[in-house]
Amino acid sequence: MPEFLKLTPVQPALQVLLSQMQVEIIAEWVATIHALGRVTAETISSPLPLPSFPRSTVDGYAVRAADTFGASESLPAYLRMIGEILMGTTPGFDINPGEAGLIHTGGMLPASSNAVVMVEYTQPVSVDTIEILRPVAVGENIINIGEDVQIGDEVISPGVRIRPAEIGGLAAFGIVELKVARKPIIGIISTGDEVVPPENKLLPGQVWDINSYSLSALIDQAGAIPKLYGVVPDQAEILKSTCSRALAECDVIVITAGSSASARDLTARVINQLGPPGVLVHGVNIKPGKPTILAICNGKVVIGLPGNPVSAMVIAGLFVIPVIETLLGITNVGFRPKFQARLTTNIPSQAGREDWVAARLFVSQDGYQVDPIFSKSNLIFSLVRANSLIRVPVDATGLSAGELVEVYLLA
Amino acid sequence: MPEFLKLTPVQPALQVLLSQMQVEIIAEWVATIHALGRVTAETISSPLPLPSFPRSTVDGYAVRAADTFGASESLPAYLRMIGEILMGTTPGFDINPGEAGLIHTGGMLPASSNAVVMVEYTQPVSVDTIEILRPVAVGENIINIGEDVQIGDEVISPGVRIRPAEIGGLAAFGIVELKVARKPIIGIISTGDEVVPPENKLLPGQVWDINSYSLSALIDQAGAIPKLYGVVPDQAEILKSTCSRALAECDVIVITAGSSASARDLTARVINQLGPPGVLVHGVNIKPGKPTILAICNGKVVIGLPGNPVSAMVIAGLFVIPVIETLLGITNVGFRPKFQARLTTNIPSQAGREDWVAARLFVSQDGYQVDPIFSKSNLIFSLVRANSLIRVPVDATGLSAGELVEVYLLA
Repeated sequence: MPEFLKLTPVQPALQVLLSQMQVEIIAEWVATIHALGRVTAETISSPLPLPSFPRSTVDGYAVRAADTFGASESLPAYLRMIGEILMGTTPGFDINPGEAGLIHTGGMLPASSNAVVMVEYTQPVSVDTIEILRPVAVGENIINIGEDVQIGDEVISPGVRIRPAEIGGLAAFGIVELKVARKPIIGIISTGDEVVPPENKLLPGQVWDINSYSLSALIDQAGAIPKLYGVVPDQAEILKSTCSRALAECDVIVITAGSSASARDLTARVINQLGPPGVLVHGVNIKPGKPTILAICNGKVVIGLPGNPVSAMVIAGLFVIPVIETLLGITNVGFRPKFQARLTTNIPSQAGREDWVAARLFVSQDGYQVDPIFSKSNLIFSLVRANSLIRVPVDATGLSAGELVEVYLLA
Repeated sequence: MPEFLKLTPVQPALQVLLSQMQVEIIAEWVATIHALGRVTAETISSPLPLPSFPRSTVDGYAVRAADTFGASESLPAYLRMIGEILMGTTPGFDINPGEAGLIHTGGMLPASSNAVVMVEYTQPVSVDTIEILRPVAVGENIINIGEDVQIGDEVISPGVRIRPAEIGGLAAFGIVELKVARKPIIGIISTGDEVVPPENKLLPGQVWDINSYSLSALIDQAGAIPKLYGVVPDQAEILKSTCSRALAECDVIVITAGSSASARDLTARVINQLGPPGVLVHGVNIKPGKPTILAICNGKVVIGLPGNPVSAMVIAGLFVIPVIETLLGITNVGFRPKFQARLTTNIPSQAGREDWVAARLFVSQDGYQVDPIFSKSNLIFSLVRANSLIRVPVDATGLSAGELVEVYLLA
């Protein structure tokens, strides 16, 4: 097979691609309340300390700690109740020696008070006197100004995927909009004379286009915008004109190559005509996905995925997603948390090649176990039945039942 | 503290709530291409077998296997090349004894052929004769009709969260729309005299409303629609009228109670006036989140969350998310995959109470390790700094550095 005389390992192949692509983060404003899943394009520094005033963490009495020293059930301290601190307001009084003020959780501490006695350790004596039954130390039951963050602290870096926690953090500052990276647009072109859109009728010998659908969902999930260019027949001129249009309109294009060797060669030839430098990697040392093509044309990434739907998904996960993350400015590109699970069945593999096997991760009494799903030619429903992928490292000649193996969740 | 004389453990509390809520899955149609993250509301059975015709898995020649038996490099079999099977079409010929047809990966096998010889093991002799250099067995390099799925197989159950793999599987059947569960609407009411919307100016003693923002994102992430009712002061009549309106307009309401004991009591009293049976659980045996209120009013779930933003997020993850999943018809409600990681620092805890601690999971040479993030009063930026939560089981009196502990990712 002359097309695959030289197979590049996965990590070097990805590095070649990421190191040569042009990255320009374009920021846009988005409302914080709608920012879930977007990626920050600015440093968020705290415009105010949090909390921004000293707050009580309990219901009780704001006091001067020294006034409670030595207090006990048998020998209480007596303090004069001078008023209540209403929530959301500035206290109308200071605490002088011998005085206490009723305070609620989250209330602002009056000036000159430096601790709060929990209501459980007090007892009213008269309308304006309370007994303190336990001493408090200076600072007890108080959060001071800036204990969460100081003013000017860099609290959210650029390149961070926004979760509910970040949205809460921004709300805490009253930041109701922020700059995020514009979503990159990823053009998807399916090829193959046998492939027809799922909206159309199927004739004998034809199959519906799975890849446009599954890749579209995967790209959406990664925070980019999929743009579908439909199914293109295996003809150089039509493929080239569709690719040129997509390259002008998108940040990245993904072509699922026809499944025959000649269709794959056609894709590589067309990609080389789209702009320099063209194809960087043709053939990756992985199963499934050996016929992968990685290219840069005029600074934009062009990826040729295998036509097989499972191969296309695995390779998109390993190459298209990191490219999207890089375009979004994410710093830990390609990081996927992995599980350790005990393998239920042997997996044969060939040393010198990285294998990815669809699998079912499940919880047993002995912790996580994982069942490989063997499927001839990686049929799409093997992936529907799977909830995870097992990685067989490049230097392994297979994995044995009972071994602890690396498992990645399929979201 | 009379309000918490009886604390319910987490799991029984959730069971009480889920077992008494009314669940009616209302289905709606959605385009498959836009179904990512939605939950199926029907069984998908395969309308056709996959593949729906016998396909070659390689580039080569369709043959009758018997014609190749005994073939070798030194003693090849000679077959007559009778034509090419074009992709996406029905072959225009059958394969009779002694004949072969050129076929590409994914092409339809001609009638009477039962194997494919890879092109690498053939050699052209003349324009219509090829040498076969290796024998093939019956069925070799072929996927038969129905090898992925048989017609009528139930391939996707109701209650399944749709991933890119399911979208691909649906496309494989030409299913371009399907029934999914309508997204439940979750009303969010913030309370507290000190709380103001992040859109407003802050006066001394006030804090911005974090919970409406962070809960909105969490609810969106879980596949429901958040509906914000703003910030309500700690006054029974206003809270009651807002709750009544929200209960009429939503499937679930979530109230973040003011932080003082009196504000929490107010919330419980108001919930009890919204409809029978009212409050089922008041006080859960967990830290943070002890003052949690779980209620059903006229069949709808009403949850009172603690006002502290970290407590609100932890408790929403443990109670609000499973309620949403139940309303969507998801079967493995509340399942969250957990990691095992080695703890870097001791975590003190009180036996008889379940603790959740914000943490930072990281990869070291020795596998996953996890750093607890200790924070007075669960300040929001402790959660921003965290990527995970450690669960301290109810019977533990703390966890020790070096122990393997349960860690849940914070998405």
